[in-house]
Amino acid sequence: MIKLKKCSSDLPTKGFYLFDGNIQLSLMVRVGVNGYGVIGRRIAYAVSKQDDMELVGIAKGHPDYKAKLASAKGFKIYSSDLSGTGAFDRAGVVVSGTIDDLLQNVDIIVDCTPEGIGEKNKPLYEKAGCRAIWQGGEEHSISGLSFNAYANYGQAFGARYARVVSCNTTGLLRTLFPLKAAFGIKSVNAFLVRRAADPSETKKGPINALELEKQMPSHHGDDVKTVIPELNISTTAIKASTTLMHIHHVTVELGSGATSDELLDAWSGYRRIVAVSARDGLASTAHLMDMARDMGRGMGDLYEIAVWKEMLVDGSRLEYMQAVHQESDVVPENVDAIRAMCSIEKDAAKSIEKTDRSLGIGLSL
Amino acid sequence: MIKLKKCSSDLPTKGFYLFDGNIQLSLMVRVGVNGYGVIGRRIAYAVSKQDDMELVGIAKGHPDYKAKLASAKGFKIYSSDLSGTGAFDRAGVVVSGTIDDLLQNVDIIVDCTPEGIGEKNKPLYEKAGCRAIWQGGEEHSISGLSFNAYANYGQAFGARYARVVSCNTTGLLRTLFPLKAAFGIKSVNAFLVRRAADPSETKKGPINALELEKQMPSHHGDDVKTVIPELNISTTAIKASTTLMHIHHVTVELGSGATSDELLDAWSGYRRIVAVSARDGLASTAHLMDMARDMGRGMGDLYEIAVWKEMLVDGSRLEYMQAVHQESDVVPENVDAIRAMCSIEKDAAKSIEKTDRSLGIGLSL
Amino acid sequence: MIKLKKCSSDLPTKGFYLFDGNIQLSLMVRVGVNGYGVIGRRIAYAVSKQDDMELVGIAKGHPDYKAKLASAKGFKIYSSDLSGTGAFDRAGVVVSGTIDDLLQNVDIIVDCTPEGIGEKNKPLYEKAGCRAIWQGGEEHSISGLSFNAYANYGQAFGARYARVVSCNTTGLLRTLFPLKAAFGIKSVNAFLVRRAADPSETKKGPINALELEKQMPSHHGDDVKTVIPELNISTTAIKASTTLMHIHHVTVELGSGATSDELLDAWSGYRRIVAVSARDGLASTAHLMDMARDMGRGMGDLYEIAVWKEMLVDGSRLEYMQAVHQESDVVPENVDAIRAMCSIEKDAAKSIEKTDRSLGIGLSL
Amino acid sequence: MIKLKKCSSDLPTKGFYLFDGNIQLSLMVRVGVNGYGVIGRRIAYAVSKQDDMELVGIAKGHPDYKAKLASAKGFKIYSSDLSGTGAFDRAGVVVSGTIDDLLQNVDIIVDCTPEGIGEKNKPLYEKAGCRAIWQGGEEHSISGLSFNAYANYGQAFGARYARVVSCNTTGLLRTLFPLKAAFGIKSVNAFLVRRAADPSETKKGPINALELEKQMPSHHGDDVKTVIPELNISTTAIKASTTLMHIHHVTVELGSGATSDELLDAWSGYRRIVAVSARDGLASTAHLMDMARDMGRGMGDLYEIAVWKEMLVDGSRLEYMQAVHQESDVVPENVDAIRAMCSIEKDAAKSIEKTDRSLGIGLSL
Repeated sequence: MIKLKKCSSDLPTKGFYLFDGNIQLSLMVRVGVNGYGVIGRRIAYAVSKQDDMELVGIAKGHPDYKAKLASAKGFKIYSSDLSGTGAFDRAGVVVSGTIDDLLQNVDIIVDCTPEGIGEKNKPLYEKAGCRAIWQGGEEHSISGLSFNAYANYGQAFGARYARVVSCNTTGLLRTLFPLKAAFGIKSVNAFLVRRAADPSETKKGPINALELEKQMPSHHGDDVKTVIPELNISTTAIKASTTLMHIHHVTVELGSGATSDELLDAWSGYRRIVAVSARDGLASTAHLMDMARDMGRGMGDLYEIAVWKEMLVDGSRLEYMQAVHQESDVVPENVDAIRAMCSIEKDAAKSIEKTDRSLGIGLSL
Repeated sequence: MIKLKKCSSDLPTKGFYLFDGNIQLSLMVRVGVNGYGVIGRRIAYAVSKQDDMELVGIAKGHPDYKAKLASAKGFKIYSSDLSGTGAFDRAGVVVSGTIDDLLQNVDIIVDCTPEGIGEKNKPLYEKAGCRAIWQGGEEHSISGLSFNAYANYGQAFGARYARVVSCNTTGLLRTLFPLKAAFGIKSVNAFLVRRAADPSETKKGPINALELEKQMPSHHGDDVKTVIPELNISTTAIKASTTLMHIHHVTVELGSGATSDELLDAWSGYRRIVAVSARDGLASTAHLMDMARDMGRGMGDLYEIAVWKEMLVDGSRLEYMQAVHQESDVVPENVDAIRAMCSIEKDAAKSIEKTDRSLGIGLSL
Repeated sequence: MIKLKKCSSDLPTKGFYLFDGNIQLSLMVRVGVNGYGVIGRRIAYAVSKQDDMELVGIAKGHPDYKAKLASAKGFKIYSSDLSGTGAFDRAGVVVSGTIDDLLQNVDIIVDCTPEGIGEKNKPLYEKAGCRAIWQGGEEHSISGLSFNAYANYGQAFGARYARVVSCNTTGLLRTLFPLKAAFGIKSVNAFLVRRAADPSETKKGPINALELEKQMPSHHGDDVKTVIPELNISTTAIKASTTLMHIHHVTVELGSGATSDELLDAWSGYRRIVAVSARDGLASTAHLMDMARDMGRGMGDLYEIAVWKEMLVDGSRLEYMQAVHQESDVVPENVDAIRAMCSIEKDAAKSIEKTDRSLGIGLSL
Repeated sequence: MIKLKKCSSDLPTKGFYLFDGNIQLSLMVRVGVNGYGVIGRRIAYAVSKQDDMELVGIAKGHPDYKAKLASAKGFKIYSSDLSGTGAFDRAGVVVSGTIDDLLQNVDIIVDCTPEGIGEKNKPLYEKAGCRAIWQGGEEHSISGLSFNAYANYGQAFGARYARVVSCNTTGLLRTLFPLKAAFGIKSVNAFLVRRAADPSETKKGPINALELEKQMPSHHGDDVKTVIPELNISTTAIKASTTLMHIHHVTVELGSGATSDELLDAWSGYRRIVAVSARDGLASTAHLMDMARDMGRGMGDLYEIAVWKEMLVDGSRLEYMQAVHQESDVVPENVDAIRAMCSIEKDAAKSIEKTDRSLGIGLSL
């Protein structure tokens, strides 16, 4: 006879059960998304594509066009305004309650609210007893666990709280992790040319300038270390008048010498990295985005980090360039974080493959 | 007994038959697309979604990423270089021959080559005996028939050659046609703020300027008249440093007075127009494009002309604003033009509905 | 014997005297500038070029590079922070006191603080008993007198408070006033394509979009009427991703018919309008700004409104386009407003000529 | 008795004489400028400010607004169209002849024509027997002598032909030369974020993208070596959607350790370098350009390379960032090149100081 054993009561996990602690019966993990902007919409979409997750609903503050489209997709909407649903009611957008109601019905909430708001939401999640994921706009200390699927999936297994690192940090981790695994890394210096605003952030500039980050070195290097503490990395950053993608120029002192072919070979084992070439007409972020749209993926996203095949290798010294689609590269990471934290899948490679397959990740040119 | 009668031999139509000249047996019309850039790719995609058309293949000049993705989609590629397929062979992109080979196997070719090249291609199409559609970059005289589905579908029925008017002209025709039908139009003055380049046209500027069109009035007014000759319209245009959409400010002297509600009501009968509002957060071309991406359509397109509900109406004088997605608004027009020219469907409304359904056109906010 | 008679005591004017109320002894009017950003710096510069004005000092909030350059120019700096000069002291920038000290020593203060702050400053100016000018970011009601040198110089004579209208409103008044004087105006419809940010406003966007103004019609038409109440004008506006200049498309129903030559002739009598042509390579705002820099004026400014010679005239119906340098067109207006308000010069034409000569205004191409 | 000895006849120098080869009588060197765009106009202006040079005239191809302003400045204009002056005559712009006439009357011509045209002009200069300077768009081989005033002024003394290196190369040489002199340099790696177009190049993009240079490494490193062959330098570059300035991120392995203060101290001896700080509000290229305009220099130029005081120093490893005003940094270099080539001044420091004083170079914040 099979006995169902509920998860130990000190874990806030709801919604799935373990057989004798060994065999796992994957019921659908119930996921909520709080914040439905650039990142939230994409995570909601990605969650809805998983066969082991159920998107319970999304919470947002305003009954705008995003709310109306979410309704049209059949997503349940909750008002992130704790005081009620009046704004939605007046706009004729049907909502299922407030964020509190959503939190009662989820195993895990993915916080995609603007930088700094995520921190203020933590007490809500604590009270509701659900797991929570924050994005890279929040500090590492919010959860004590910063996540990247390639680098530290295992650390998140069963964790109550985690933070998926930012788009830039994710981009660096993606291509450095394979290098570290294959050749070792003595030091990394990266120069980041950041897009200054997302496409729909019409209030942000500059319209015509290059602007330095406040700090030198920038915070991105330290942020990489929240995931791989032993990495010797320093970063500098500027902002450019573009909305499409970041470009990173990365200088690595490898542990051992390598050829350009060996490097591409090392990366080729990782679906979330795509090697591109100016010879194929892919010499700009505009062309990379055009390629992504051409592929017909949801929202025209490029989940993969694009690494240019044109690189400089001199013994153990490597210079390469990569482009990061800030709107989407963290999306598969969030899906994997859910799977790890809710103990759905212990094996990083299996979760990653499942996520990638569901989103069509893995492009070879 | 049913006798199959081939189309009269003086028509270049191949591939479908009429029963006694009355009942039509819809075989798949064989379509080729020459030029696979901004417009060509979208038309190829749209054709591939029709149940009465077959995309035989696409012709292009370079074995770049677009070629590789076309291959991955299963599209047959032909070299538009008449001298051979060497460039593709060297790049390892499989091609099925040259444009000449493609032309031998299609009933109709849609020319999507850059402005001015289409004219040079005409002898090829004449020689091959196929029907041909050009885009708005060519002159009206190339075919003597300029096309817009709402305005003159019937004129194109059975035609050998036609030209689908440009994105801006299509945009104007879309919203003016319903006004003319419902209220009559005495005069139109439109001011066009054009996007200066498409997203992937990285060589074009300006980066930071507003630039006047060479002529005042601009050519767009005369272009509208190639479709509706009796319309009293004048246009002026400038270019702005943006890649997303055009914005038109249109002033109309209607034949009769109307209210804002009556105007919106008149437009609401046309799926290729969508009424939007700044109240829903849709006050910029960036937000419209964000909405289109959010809808998950191919390439994030907004086939519809977006008209703002915020307008000025004073008796018979109307001022309204609309946004035109230059990359995609002509796509459904091309599909309808194929259907009309190849005599697949006599009824404009039926063709338009079929096209719209296949592309998910018809958005209500 | 000549008796010096002080100005009547109910006027806050200090610093100059009238002989028997008739002959005027022009002593230097003492001027202060509060706010030293885009507009403030230019007005300070322009005032320093007048032989009947003395720039007592400028007030600003931060000891930044602008403060350092102001010092290098010999301008006295005052802290606009009423609580003291600490920030400047710590940065090693010598200041002469706070805004209160400045106000004690001026006959008139020109408020160039950001939109909305000017209103909060009014009590300071009332207390100090000085005259004050605000910029177009403030409401008409702040002074009850909105100013444009061509249109209503006389109204400002001796006035204590006035508001120089905004860059866009000034641009419209400049070219409409001569048309009204020469031909009469039945109605005006203007479409404004606004630069979204000034060159140094790096926080403002959009980077890549066209964005509608909140209201339709825009407030600019009503603002023109604060100066010429009887003008029948309506305006609409959008913002574009550029920092250089605004472009206006203006449609005028003139009181009487006119030819293009007559129109240019009417404008040619006004130095603050310059007629330009695409034939001279001046088809964009970038080229106009390049021209202004080439002329070697302070800060590369184009004080004049640039009207394109290419226009559409059909009897009494006129369509023309103009470019407005938002950073500088109001600068000569402020100088004239000072002269009028402080009763230095009763004759508008004389003040305007004096201002124009001092700034090198009056360009003929 | 003083004997005037003419320059040896195999040198094309005209217009000044040497006393016994020792004492020099500085007559005005007669200078022509061929090409009157971004660089040509600035060099013409700078030459006109020198007391030992005479601007004979400028040659240009079109009678546009730049020609009209040049006339207004009293510059003589020559048609660069060898076939005649018809275009200017028709436009009513007075010209003094063709480029051939100009060349007959100059000791030295400064070629500022577009990239690649300069090479085609060489036979003209050879035939005329005058000295010639080209800009960085041409290859080193055009003259065999690439010039930077700090690095190799002496090499150009008496030379017939020289090439002033490009804006980016000049920028790198400016700040590296002092470091090399003070501390020695083992290696340099620089990443260049280039402005994609000059402000008035409205045809060039991208409007919204980051684009890689064709080659990796970029040509700039090799170009630096045409001036300092022994420097171990490698560069990589991308283009950004901005018109204002380039930004360089430079990593240097110094010959000996240094502190940040020692580095700034080393640079402070060079007027063509200005140290700036984000603390003064100078964190973007827009603010640097705003500062330059505020200083009231001709065309709002920043001849100096701006180095940020915020840098990373770790022993002998240095990371710093600098901004390069591509329109103007080579202007003083051209003036010095003229002085060296025409043997006006043997001492580099004296020429540089003279140039700097005439242009107001030497800014301390």
